[in-house]
Amino acid sequence: MEIARPYLLFLGDARDALAAKTGLGIVDWRRDWVVGQLRLPGCAADAKVPDMSIAEGAAAGAKTLVIGVVNAGGVLPDHWVSEIVAALDAGMDVAAGLHTRLGSIPAIAEAAARNGRALHDVRHSSERFATGKGDKRAGMRLLTVGTDCSVGKKYTALALETGMREAGFDADFKATGQTGVFISGRGVAIDAVVADFISGAVEWISPAAAESHWDLIEGQGSLFHPSFAGVSLGLLHGAQPDAFVVCHEPTRRTMRGVNTPLPTIGDVIHMTTSLGRLTNPAIRCVGIAVNTEKLGEDEARAELARLATTYALPATDPVRFGVEPIVAKVAECFR
Amino acid sequence: MEIARPYLLFLGDARDALAAKTGLGIVDWRRDWVVGQLRLPGCAADAKVPDMSIAEGAAAGAKTLVIGVVNAGGVLPDHWVSEIVAALDAGMDVAAGLHTRLGSIPAIAEAAARNGRALHDVRHSSERFATGKGDKRAGMRLLTVGTDCSVGKKYTALALETGMREAGFDADFKATGQTGVFISGRGVAIDAVVADFISGAVEWISPAAAESHWDLIEGQGSLFHPSFAGVSLGLLHGAQPDAFVVCHEPTRRTMRGVNTPLPTIGDVIHMTTSLGRLTNPAIRCVGIAVNTEKLGEDEARAELARLATTYALPATDPVRFGVEPIVAKVAECFR
Repeated sequence: MEIARPYLLFLGDARDALAAKTGLGIVDWRRDWVVGQLRLPGCAADAKVPDMSIAEGAAAGAKTLVIGVVNAGGVLPDHWVSEIVAALDAGMDVAAGLHTRLGSIPAIAEAAARNGRALHDVRHSSERFATGKGDKRAGMRLLTVGTDCSVGKKYTALALETGMREAGFDADFKATGQTGVFISGRGVAIDAVVADFISGAVEWISPAAAESHWDLIEGQGSLFHPSFAGVSLGLLHGAQPDAFVVCHEPTRRTMRGVNTPLPTIGDVIHMTTSLGRLTNPAIRCVGIAVNTEKLGEDEARAELARLATTYALPATDPVRFGVEPIVAKVAECFR
Repeated sequence: MEIARPYLLFLGDARDALAAKTGLGIVDWRRDWVVGQLRLPGCAADAKVPDMSIAEGAAAGAKTLVIGVVNAGGVLPDHWVSEIVAALDAGMDVAAGLHTRLGSIPAIAEAAARNGRALHDVRHSSERFATGKGDKRAGMRLLTVGTDCSVGKKYTALALETGMREAGFDADFKATGQTGVFISGRGVAIDAVVADFISGAVEWISPAAAESHWDLIEGQGSLFHPSFAGVSLGLLHGAQPDAFVVCHEPTRRTMRGVNTPLPTIGDVIHMTTSLGRLTNPAIRCVGIAVNTEKLGEDEARAELARLATTYALPATDPVRFGVEPIVAKVAECFR
């Protein structure tokens, strides 16, 4: 699946910025791929790109209307349908990451057929995957893992793509979640794959490549999250990473959505190394990425220095202080 | 999903006993639920129950035609369709564990609708699961885990159901694979669930129960299998077992379908305990179940004695020597 670019972002009537985080994430990382945003009355999010109607987006060259907003329950409300049909009639494809399949709504299915346009449901892969094989593939791989969900794994992998390219590496971000798929234009939402094929789907996402090429694979969940650890382990085995970065949010006390306490960064390094050895005996941790948003600058620097000493690894906040220490560690270990 | 009993087994034109292992497994464990078998010309399997036509099965009271055979690729060949339609017309439901959905074949869908009968696709759960929560549920749970796939996890859990009931325990087998679902009349083929919901589906399969009740949960795959470890980990977290039994086949050198070497029983005990603590800090190993089929009797006894000493745990072959030592260990640890 390859999503045609550029995009017109549909932010609908997003009730806040969080509801539109997919759309805002696309603009953060791929501003050049976005011609504008379509907002309905009452929309409380703003991606800071030109407001456009469907007709204006089509005139600006948009090839795909990307649904960059979620509403409660992940369903597609009736009042979005007419805009989606108008986009198809204007010659655009439509891409979404909703639980509801676009094609399950007759008006949308008919408009897509009538205009010969594609509907991309990134949470419903139509790709037939093989089961994972576990054989070592050529090329280098880095996986971002986490102490929890939503601690910056996608952001860190994307920041490493930029940083490693600047340092002369041949490196590509590989998406495993819906926002990541829109940002990279391809990939699979791994949590939506049938359980038997988790590691096989990751082997498909990150196939054999040139020996010096790096795939920077977006992690999901946490090996210590009671809802999603199975996804995280299948992703680890399929990614067979040479290197991993642990992502962490230091003020969180229980894991997202459950009552389970957070593991330590040390727990995650130990368990990721132990389990990851199955498909890559040389796996090693190359850094710690901390979301220090809730800490003052002095406090943040002190925490990062403490972690760097404790684990003898570079520790940084990719947003606040950049990823250079981790890129330097990768260069030191693998060049 | 509850599959109506008794069953008429459809063995089709199974090319050997292995192709009919679902049907043979049902007869092994639930002879009373089976009125007979329907075999097509060329069938090379025999479940040792009366041969019957659809009409004879219906007259004998069969409520469900169970497709107890797989053919290459898990698809449903055209020449089975007329028998399935005849079963629906005779008032039976139909249950199968094929990749092909029964209802995707128009003649079958029409016959089911015409007769108001149910089609059960046990590899395509229509249940909407929640994500796993990880909270401790009332009741006791035992999970069978493995050094590999196909090492006797289902057989061991079923043998423990019989053995623990005989020893006075209130114990129920809980299925997580397609043959197990037919044997228990309910359950979910966990490898067919969407990845995000693995542990949540297991929480649904084994809900809160009386404090002294035991769920004996069928394991899947292995934490050390590069294709399926994600399924095994989600299953472990959702099952939150108090006790687990490691199942093993001592002559195997690489894991089923891949080039990965087998872990040791000690590796599996250590990793299952480490990871299982997340949802049950009191998790402990209560025994080792070895498939000694390929060993002579003296050799088998010597190997079991060696394992029992090495790991200070009961070690038995459930088929050859019964599960009494493991039942005794459960009684010692938990009564």
